[in-house]
This record gives sequence, structure tokens and C-alpha cells, in this order.
Amino acid sequence: MEKLLRINMSAEGGPEVNVIPIGEYAGLGGRALTSAVISKEVPPLAHPLSEDNKLVIAPGMLSGSIAAMSGRISVGCKSPLTGGIKEANSGGQPSQVLARLGYAAIILEGKPKDGDLYKVFINKDGVKITPDNSLKMLGNYDVVEKMKGEYGDKIACISIGPAGEMKMSAASIAFTDMELRPTRHAGRGGVGAVMGAKGVKVIVLDDKGMASRAPKDPGKFKAANKAFVEGLKKHPVTGEALPAYGTNVLANIINEAGGYPTNNFLWGRFPGVSKISGETEAETEVARGGVATHGCHRGCTIQCSGIYMDKDGHYLTKQPEYETVWAHGANCGIDDLDAIAMLDRLDDDYGLDTIEMGATIGVAMEAGLAKFGDAQAAIGLIKEVGKGTPLGRILGNGAAVTGKVFGVERVPVVKGQALPAYDPRSVQGMGVTYATSTMGADHTAGYAVTANVLKVGGFVDPLKAEGQIELSRNLQIATAAIDATGMCLFIAFAVLDQPETFQALLDLLNSFYGLKLTGDDVTALGKKILIMERDFNKRAGFTNQQDRLPEFFKKELLPPHNVVFQVTDEDLDKVYNW
Amino acid sequence: MEKLLRINMSAEGGPEVNVIPIGEYAGLGGRALTSAVISKEVPPLAHPLSEDNKLVIAPGMLSGSIAAMSGRISVGCKSPLTGGIKEANSGGQPSQVLARLGYAAIILEGKPKDGDLYKVFINKDGVKITPDNSLKMLGNYDVVEKMKGEYGDKIACISIGPAGEMKMSAASIAFTDMELRPTRHAGRGGVGAVMGAKGVKVIVLDDKGMASRAPKDPGKFKAANKAFVEGLKKHPVTGEALPAYGTNVLANIINEAGGYPTNNFLWGRFPGVSKISGETEAETEVARGGVATHGCHRGCTIQCSGIYMDKDGHYLTKQPEYETVWAHGANCGIDDLDAIAMLDRLDDDYGLDTIEMGATIGVAMEAGLAKFGDAQAAIGLIKEVGKGTPLGRILGNGAAVTGKVFGVERVPVVKGQALPAYDPRSVQGMGVTYATSTMGADHTAGYAVTANVLKVGGFVDPLKAEGQIELSRNLQIATAAIDATGMCLFIAFAVLDQPETFQALLDLLNSFYGLKLTGDDVTALGKKILIMERDFNKRAGFTNQQDRLPEFFKKELLPPHNVVFQVTDEDLDKVYNW
Repeated sequence: MEKLLRINMSAEGGPEVNVIPIGEYAGLGGRALTSAVISKEVPPLAHPLSEDNKLVIAPGMLSGSIAAMSGRISVGCKSPLTGGIKEANSGGQPSQVLARLGYAAIILEGKPKDGDLYKVFINKDGVKITPDNSLKMLGNYDVVEKMKGEYGDKIACISIGPAGEMKMSAASIAFTDMELRPTRHAGRGGVGAVMGAKGVKVIVLDDKGMASRAPKDPGKFKAANKAFVEGLKKHPVTGEALPAYGTNVLANIINEAGGYPTNNFLWGRFPGVSKISGETEAETEVARGGVATHGCHRGCTIQCSGIYMDKDGHYLTKQPEYETVWAHGANCGIDDLDAIAMLDRLDDDYGLDTIEMGATIGVAMEAGLAKFGDAQAAIGLIKEVGKGTPLGRILGNGAAVTGKVFGVERVPVVKGQALPAYDPRSVQGMGVTYATSTMGADHTAGYAVTANVLKVGGFVDPLKAEGQIELSRNLQIATAAIDATGMCLFIAFAVLDQPETFQALLDLLNSFYGLKLTGDDVTALGKKILIMERDFNKRAGFTNQQDRLPEFFKKELLPPHNVVFQVTDEDLDKVYNW
Repeated sequence: MEKLLRINMSAEGGPEVNVIPIGEYAGLGGRALTSAVISKEVPPLAHPLSEDNKLVIAPGMLSGSIAAMSGRISVGCKSPLTGGIKEANSGGQPSQVLARLGYAAIILEGKPKDGDLYKVFINKDGVKITPDNSLKMLGNYDVVEKMKGEYGDKIACISIGPAGEMKMSAASIAFTDMELRPTRHAGRGGVGAVMGAKGVKVIVLDDKGMASRAPKDPGKFKAANKAFVEGLKKHPVTGEALPAYGTNVLANIINEAGGYPTNNFLWGRFPGVSKISGETEAETEVARGGVATHGCHRGCTIQCSGIYMDKDGHYLTKQPEYETVWAHGANCGIDDLDAIAMLDRLDDDYGLDTIEMGATIGVAMEAGLAKFGDAQAAIGLIKEVGKGTPLGRILGNGAAVTGKVFGVERVPVVKGQALPAYDPRSVQGMGVTYATSTMGADHTAGYAVTANVLKVGGFVDPLKAEGQIELSRNLQIATAAIDATGMCLFIAFAVLDQPETFQALLDLLNSFYGLKLTGDDVTALGKKILIMERDFNKRAGFTNQQDRLPEFFKKELLPPHNVVFQVTDEDLDKVYNW
């Protein structure tokens, strides 16, 4: 990972490949690298679809090594959805493969002058870019099938579907999983639209002939990895709950806590939760010959995913995640798991962020375009997006645009990005993260559900303002650092509760790079990333006034606890005063 | 004008009327009053369509008097289009009528709890509000016809069309003219959507039994008015050009100057200009039995308007203005005056801002939805808006939303509001106004065409940065003050060039109110208004970063002068440093 792959799509005579030493960005990975490049190289007032924006795809610091859980990848750009800086994070195989190929990042720059669509092939021999207009408007599944036909099945793919080509602000970038299916997505912020604007449909990676990245101290690294895996195995969340039921184990928990947003954030509990819970989902998967415990990339030991079959026992999609099941389920009043799985499949194929799309359909239902609970109508709406009809274009640009176009007042977005699956009124720490994250509303940016609901890393009363600022701040800092490592964020459960597992993580980094990082260094890295991101957003025109939840969260009482969001604006403004 | 009419649409049991003394707002009129109320009473982060927003409709300080040109009215709210404060200004009869009825402003507050649509009737006996769902989705022409049937033809109407009811961000509010036609519009910023959100379809005004407002010193007032009218008559713009050819006299002039934006701001000259110029328009009107010299309200001496007949000699619309002819014409490559007049009629009937809609169709054409120059396609697109189809909803929300939905990079907006009919690269003073106005891109906010092109009030080279900041600043200050008086902005031509006409304006104000205002006081008033507006925008989250033109104006050379916008960001930030 000592080189950068810069591809200038604007070059005369077609895209120009430049493989250069990492230089000033040395030592950075994942989100630290993507945010550094965007912050330094992209003019903050550039149009997100213009040649001045860049798309940075960066494995983490430990990606490509044998460290467990190190297969996350970061995608950075100026976001078409928020207008601010964006890091969207994905699992799947490409992170490990790209890292083994030696690239710290792929940076797509410029914009093709012609209307051609390109594919990029990268292996040990170099980089090849070819126009391939036969790929135009293919879904992600078809793109990957086509690439398998051309390059064999030992590849990993990074691709966009029709949504990205149509430059929709809810467009994702797909990363293939271990089965070479496009099921893992850098979902948020419209990163797929930026890849679409760059004219790149798919990046095919083949690491044949490349070894795992070697640590400086192999012995210590191996020992640290062992301790790290043991820590993950023994924690109840990462060792039991997530493997057994996947992320959707949260449905019953968050519903019970009264924080499961239902019918476009009208209520905090969903009457149909038992039909779409993680328990029901796992049972359904196993009964149909699917898989309820599965990883998204090699080296994953938590195995929070699975494989979802349709009623006839045929593959439909990967196990829909908690956020997806909520977004397309409770948030739209839908309790039909098969319909939700179909929506997940369509989103993955079109290349759409499931959170944004679920929130968008909730807003569309509020606007009267369909009734809450009407699963078939929801499927119909998503198909409009895939077809690119005017209605589909509206929806594919997310909840904020949909709310604006249809004159809806209750639109659950911050900085233009839809809120995920925790109502900020009954999980107030999440409200602080939604409001203040550099990313727009993003649960992964500072997952206060830990202390608010799960009692991981302490306990902070979820219905009160007290302690939420500090909780969210500390989590946002820690998360930014973890997002730089390439580690799956779910390690945080064990790392927060078990000092020895946190130490094992430090030992992994130190033995790999020959460093002597302490906990303070990790905190410093997290702060550095956040400061960089916030500075970009400031230069792009953001102020504290954008660090606010929509007004209705401060005015409408949320059943069953009948609370509003309590954290004051003054307190929100303290998150970055550390 | 010593009382305010507050209507609380949220009240239990239906809308509640409160007529109260003007109190703390005494002495304010027009934009000074609307911006004071919005700035003080509307939470800056309120959703523009929420009950917390207010719609303020205020005649100017001299409205309702016999002063010439005093029939302008201001509409204020938090804008659904820009997210900032908004004052949209209109001619027509209602300003004089409302002022004679003694109201300094109508303030619509709250939001009806039911889905009913209301009409408001105001006469000397008081205010009556009734639900009237038979008005739902009527065009402005039909609404006014219906009101004539109910209340007779001695009324004046303020109404919204389907666009306002659908809460579109390009929705205008219509004000009837002397012929009781809904041809005058507070066009910009989506004020019609706010009236729609308040559930008010039409306000009917009847001033039977009310006299003109009496000045403190009738003798001096009469003399001042005489001097004022003489000044307007002797200036070549207000005494000759505008009466003869209307505002569209500018088409040839601005085209010649290379500042007539063509095909979505691609070129600065339009090959088809002679077919749509003011000269051609006036000739066409006269030949068909229309009128080429006409006022929009009683007391107008400039008479810049007219009446446009179709090919068969039947009334089609009022004389389409320069901005309208440009927006639906050159900006879309359309040189068919009858088609442009039809678009004007449709916009007036649906209740849409012609500038925003022309710019929006330009963006839609850039997106490939129609070909530049295809007049029938443009008419078809506007009809989609009236029908409220998904495509129509997109377009009806303006150029910024349309650009976002269709992934277009070249979108000519500032703060979300479309640029009017002067390319900022060849009329750089206008560029400064577009960028820095509190209103979003707005030519009326500081009409630098005066010194840049018309050589009124001095000369500043339009292609260079030098002098533009000071020019725009001074014009923005003067304009804010004029917008408070109820005077038509076109008096500025004579007032800028002729000291005695400026003195006559001061004399009008002083003799009416018993004041001793000097030029400095007028400047102070303008500054006070701008500071208030800018402060609201700041509290709503705006920074200097929003005071910028889209990037393409800084990068793409505009033929024929092949210049980019030259004013630096640093200089733009000096506009409000006075």
C-alpha cells in the first residue's frame, strides 16, 4: 500500500493512469486517507458531479493483512447528497484484494469528455481501462456476471448500477462479497453518483500472485490477532448475538426501547416487529436452505450476515441488515419480510442506499403516493427508480428532494441525508450524532446505541439530554479512527467493554507498522480526521446551524415515551469543543 | 395603515382574525415591514411549509396615497426555494386597495388543521374567512372570475394557482391588475407555496367607501408629486423607452452587450433576438389590437406594460416582461413570441415564477428532456407542472431541484434561486448582486445594469471586476429602501440621474409623514433592512460561502466577449462591509 492509483478521466485521448508513490499521505488508510485527499484536493464549492470532485476508494491500514475483521473499505468524495465531505464505508472482498495489490487508494479524477462508460481492470501486471458501453444501465448483478465471464471468478468487483449512472444522490457503490455477488455497499451520500459522473461502471480486481501484506513483526502480529479474535468471541454482542441473528437482532431490542421509527418517524414502536425481527429472519433463512451466520469478507469472525432465499428456496439477496429491514419495513409500516428482501435485492441491483430509499419511501407515503404498509406499492416505487422515470428520479435523489418536490414538512434528514433506524427522541445520544456528524445523519458515525440502549461502554439514559454530548463526541472520535484501520466497526462492542481487546487492536497496528501507538494516539487520529472533515464542510458553507435535527423532533412527542429531542442547540455546539 | 391583520390559521375551530395596532412596527412599510416581521417572528430553522413560518403581505409607505408609482406590494416569508428570508415584490391593484383599507400588512400565521382551502374577504366592515373547497386546484384566472361573480368587479385579488396549492418552490402569488386579471406576481422564492401551506387560496379586497390616504401636508405633497412625475417623464428610460416598448426594450440592448444568456447560459447573444425583442413585441401587440403602453396599477405614469393578443385578436396575456421573454425565449433557444406569450399565460394561471420556470426548462433541456428551441416541448413541460405529474412536480420546484434530480452540473442558481436575464460574465455588477443578495440571485436586488450597460448613474465597465462591488452595494442599499416605500423600482433610473427627482421622492415621504428625511436617512434605512435580512440568513445557516456564483461562471468563457466572472471571493465578501 505504498502507491496511489490516480486515473484522470479528463485526459485528452481517453483516461490516463498514473501510479505514483503515496507521498504525503503515507501512513494513512481508510477514512483518514479519503478525507485527507478530499479535504486537500477538492475545491469545497465544486459541484459534486463536476470534474473537480474526486472519488477516493481506500482500504484501511490493516486491510490486506491476515488480521481478522480488516476487510472494510472507505469511499470518499464531496457528497452530492449533503454537499459536504463524505466517507461511505463498505465490507466485501475488494478491500483485502486492493490492499494486496499494493494500492493505498484508487483516485478517480476529472470527467470523460465523451459519453463512454468505462471499466477498469487491475491486477499484478498493472491497470487497464477500456470503454465498454455494453455495460450501460446494467444492474450490479448483471455487471458482475459479465465480469466473471470476462475475467473468471477469482476477482472482486466495485461497481455502480443504473442509479449511479443516472447520478442519483442516493446511489451507492457495490462491493462484491465472498460469493462474488454485489451485496456490500458504500451506501450513503450518493458516492455512486460521483462514480457515475466519472464515467466508471466497474473496477475489477484480481490479486492472483499477490501475497497477504506482511507485518513488521509477524510473531507479535499473530499473537495480537489471536487475542483480538478471542476478545470478539467472548463478548456477548460480537460472539453471540450478531453471529446468531445478524444485525437485525436489534429490531426487537430497539422496538422494546421505543426507539424503532415507524411510519416515517411517527411512532417509536412497530406493531409488526415480530414478523421482521432478526430472530424471524434467521429462522426463515435456515428453513429455506439459506444461511443465518455468514461473513461479508474472508477474515470476518463475527459473521453477522447471512443468505436469504425466496419462498422457493432460490437465492434472493444477502441477509437484509437491521437498517434495511427497518427502513423498508417499520419506517414504511411494512411487516412482510419477503417484500423487504425483494426491496433489498432491488436496491443492491440498481445500486441504491437502502437507508435513504426506505426513508424516501416513508416520505413518499407521507405525501400520499402510497399507503403505509403497502409492500407492493413500495416495490413499485423502487422499480420506478431503476427505470429512471421522473418519479423514480425524484425518489432516487433521496428523502430531502422527495420531501421538497412533494411539499412534505416531516422529512427526517440532517444535512440532506436520511436518519437511520433509531429515533433521536428515544435514543438521544444518536440524535446528537445525527445532528453533529460531518457526514449528515449517520448511525455509524458515533453509535450511541451502545451506552443508550445496549449498556455497552457504560450507560447513559437514552431519554435524557445529560451525558449525550460527551458520549457522542467520544464515539465519533473513536469511530473516525476505527474507520481508518479497515476494521469492521462492530469490533467496537468488544473494544469498548474489554480493555484487553482494545490493547489487542493497538498491538495489531503496532506490530504491523512497527509503531508504538497508545490509546491517546488513536484518539488523536480520530480528532485529526474529524477536524479535517469539519474544516472542509465549513469551507463548503456549513455552520453550526446545519448541526440540527429537523424541527419536528423538537416538537412532536414520540410514543410510547412521549418525549421530544431534549439536547439544546448550545450543547450540540459543544461536540467539537474538546 | 396603523393596523395589522393577523390571521391565525392554526386556531381551534378555524382561522382566527386579529386586527391589532401596528405597535413596534410603526413607520415601516413594504420590504422594511415584511423583513422586520420575518426576522423577528419566524424561527430561522423553521421548515418553510410549517406552521412556524409566516406570510406577510405589506403595501409600501406611500401606497394608498395619490403619489405616482406607489402601487408596489411586498410579500415576505422564509423562502421554500432559498431557505433564507424572502421579499418578493409585485405591482397590480392590491397594494393601493389594502393600504386604503388601513392595513399595514396581512400576516398569515399557523397552518390549518383540516384540509380545507380558505378565502379571505376584506372590506371597510372587516374581515371574513370562509372555507371554499370549490376553489381547489383552480387556475388564477378562474379564481378571479369566481370572485368577480361573488363580490362584483370593484375588487382586487391576491391568489395562488395550483402550483401554490401543491407547495411548489417556484410558486408565485398573483395580484390583479387594473383589468382585474391575475397578471402581476410576487414571483420569486416560492412565496405561493407558503400561502398554499397556510391554506389560503385567495384574498379579496374591496375598498368601497375608503378614501386615499391623506398626507400630513397636502399642499407640499401635491407639489412633490408633480415634480416627481415631471422627473419621470423627462428621463429617456422612464419617459420614452419603457412606455414605448416596455421592459423588453432591453432585449436588443442586453443582446448587443453580449449579456443575453442563451441556451442555459451557454452564449451571451441570441441569434433569434429580433423576433422576440421589445420592438417586435410592441408592434405585434398594436397590430393585433392589443396595447403596447399600459400601467399595472392606477397611478402608474411609466406605463411599461401592455396587453398581448393572440393571432386571432383575443386576449392572451399581459405584455410578457423582458425577464419572461428572455427566460422562456433566449434561455431556451426559443424565438417564437406567441409561444412565449402562451408560456407567460400558463405561468400566470398556474401561479409560477416566469424567471424560475424559464431557467428550469433551460436546465431540463440541458438534461435532454427537450431540445433547445422546441417551443411546443416547453409548453408541454409547463403543462406538466400545472397537472402536478411527477415531472411537473420536479420542474415546479425550480432549477436547482431539477438540476439535482436529473444530475445536471450547469445549474444557474445562487442560494437555490435561478439567475435572471443578464449573464454575470458580461454584466459583472449583476454577478455581484446575484452572488451577495440576501434573496438569492435577483436582478431587482441591485440592478447594476444601470451603470454597467445603460450608463445610468455613471459607468462601470461591465467586463471587469473594478468598481462592481461598490456599484452593487450602493444599489442594493438604495433598492432595499425603495422597496420599503411602495414605489416601483423603475423610478430609480430618474432618481439616480436627476438629483431633483430624488429630492421629489424625499419630499413625497416627508410631506406625507411629516418627516425630515435626507438622502442619508434613506441610505440608513436600506442598510438597516439588509442587515436584518442578512442576520436572518446567518441564523438560518448561511455564510459567505453561499454568496458565490456556480463554479461554471468562473471557468467557462462566455461568447462573444469570452470572459469569465472576474470578481474574487474576497471582494464579494466586502459587499456588506460598509
